[in-house]
Amino acid sequence: MDMWYTERHGKVGITLEIVQTLVRQKTPFQEIAIVETADFGRMLLLDGLIMTTERDEFIYHELISHIPLLALPQPPRNVLIVGGGDGGVVREALRHPSVEQVVLCEIDQMVIELSRQYLPTVAGQLNDPRVEIQLRDGVEFMAEQKSRFDAIIIDSTDPISIGEGLFTVDFYRNVAGALTPNGVMVCQSESPLLDLDLVISIQRKLKQAFSIVTPYVAPIYTYPGGYWSWTMASQTTEPLAAVDWDMGQSIAQATHYYNPDVHRAVFALPNYFRAALQAMD
Amino acid sequence: MDMWYTERHGKVGITLEIVQTLVRQKTPFQEIAIVETADFGRMLLLDGLIMTTERDEFIYHELISHIPLLALPQPPRNVLIVGGGDGGVVREALRHPSVEQVVLCEIDQMVIELSRQYLPTVAGQLNDPRVEIQLRDGVEFMAEQKSRFDAIIIDSTDPISIGEGLFTVDFYRNVAGALTPNGVMVCQSESPLLDLDLVISIQRKLKQAFSIVTPYVAPIYTYPGGYWSWTMASQTTEPLAAVDWDMGQSIAQATHYYNPDVHRAVFALPNYFRAALQAMD
Repeated sequence: MDMWYTERHGKVGITLEIVQTLVRQKTPFQEIAIVETADFGRMLLLDGLIMTTERDEFIYHELISHIPLLALPQPPRNVLIVGGGDGGVVREALRHPSVEQVVLCEIDQMVIELSRQYLPTVAGQLNDPRVEIQLRDGVEFMAEQKSRFDAIIIDSTDPISIGEGLFTVDFYRNVAGALTPNGVMVCQSESPLLDLDLVISIQRKLKQAFSIVTPYVAPIYTYPGGYWSWTMASQTTEPLAAVDWDMGQSIAQATHYYNPDVHRAVFALPNYFRAALQAMD
Repeated sequence: MDMWYTERHGKVGITLEIVQTLVRQKTPFQEIAIVETADFGRMLLLDGLIMTTERDEFIYHELISHIPLLALPQPPRNVLIVGGGDGGVVREALRHPSVEQVVLCEIDQMVIELSRQYLPTVAGQLNDPRVEIQLRDGVEFMAEQKSRFDAIIIDSTDPISIGEGLFTVDFYRNVAGALTPNGVMVCQSESPLLDLDLVISIQRKLKQAFSIVTPYVAPIYTYPGGYWSWTMASQTTEPLAAVDWDMGQSIAQATHYYNPDVHRAVFALPNYFRAALQAMD
């Protein structure tokens, strides 16, 4: 018997052979499923969209974490992660020895519980004593924070349904207020290949809240278009001006994707993406 | 009516909505199909494998061409393309003003004819007076050439069926013999995400024929794993030591993916790929 899971994004999609469904559960916020694929390990789906697979999760989690955390002019001490209930960003943030506290603000407790149970290599650091879990709406939580975090990592779903509030100018202004003076934020910012207009609209909104806004890119097979973007933003910190390359080299002892050469390379945008950014200004 | 074409590679795959089949034809060498997709323009398939789409062909064709052609210590004059009957590499090679002749050695005349008819934006330069078409087996043709080409670009199918002979040490030795003293060759070298063992085996074979062997990478949604590699090889020319960056900047006026920053970035390999290369040595 062949079972395949196909995620279509408009008129294209990815398909993966499935061995079995491990869990499938409706929560007040969304439908969560964790399935075992034939070739990509276990896979977490939220409302039918692929969030992560055991085989390639390292690419996304390493890049959304180390690129901003190493950019800071001072080593990061306090980190906030919004979304990210699978624990992959927590795991990467804790690789930085300067980090004293990681606050994980996840709206849906079941994402955390099911990830702990079924995705231990991703969620394995959620019990670290430096981790504080806030089961809160990220929009509300952010509005309450003032100059508290050196880095804020928005590991959200797409800007539809429950993720929508995490892609607004108002939210970004609260993110700016929650950062320490030289702090940086980063968000996943969608597929430049399939949704370039959406990528650009995120840049435009971020520019209303931050002085320095810089996208970066990498291939992620299990995300739409196989090609993903993140965007870093800050009032003062340029993405590559103050990178702690020695720490980057040290972090790269444990990573599967990240290394200092990759760190520089992710900012090299293809011409079509550059042209869209220039047309925006 | 919804029609989808799904290309599976082992236990994963890509799927694209199809509007109509434009042509489907068996030749002595393979089955050729050109279909119109809903979102990726027209798509060329050989034996059911996606070769190119109008929407994303620029990434592959620009990178397999400009990275080696700009690496040469002298501007390229004579270029050989093996395979590549769709004409995309020809189009890119002809952007280099120093190029006097491009020999296209394609075994299957029907690939050329159908690309001319159905993929004019890809094949449009095949009638350029600098282009010489050789309807020959690339393996046989290569064995006859001596110190003739500044660059040899192997734009082949996968190392199965008719492409197989283009992935052997004997063939690579003939490529080395067909190059001018500082010449470079490049070949498409498969997906590091899905077929890392195959990527490494190509490196190993190339090293039996060349002193300098260097892979590079980029995201190509319509190829297996959404992440592709090419490998440059030469007896004397390091990939980044003699790059003509001014010419690169000039080429980048017309390209959609390539620019000098991308040129440097494609050589930044993720840790897991680096580790596999180191384990090979």
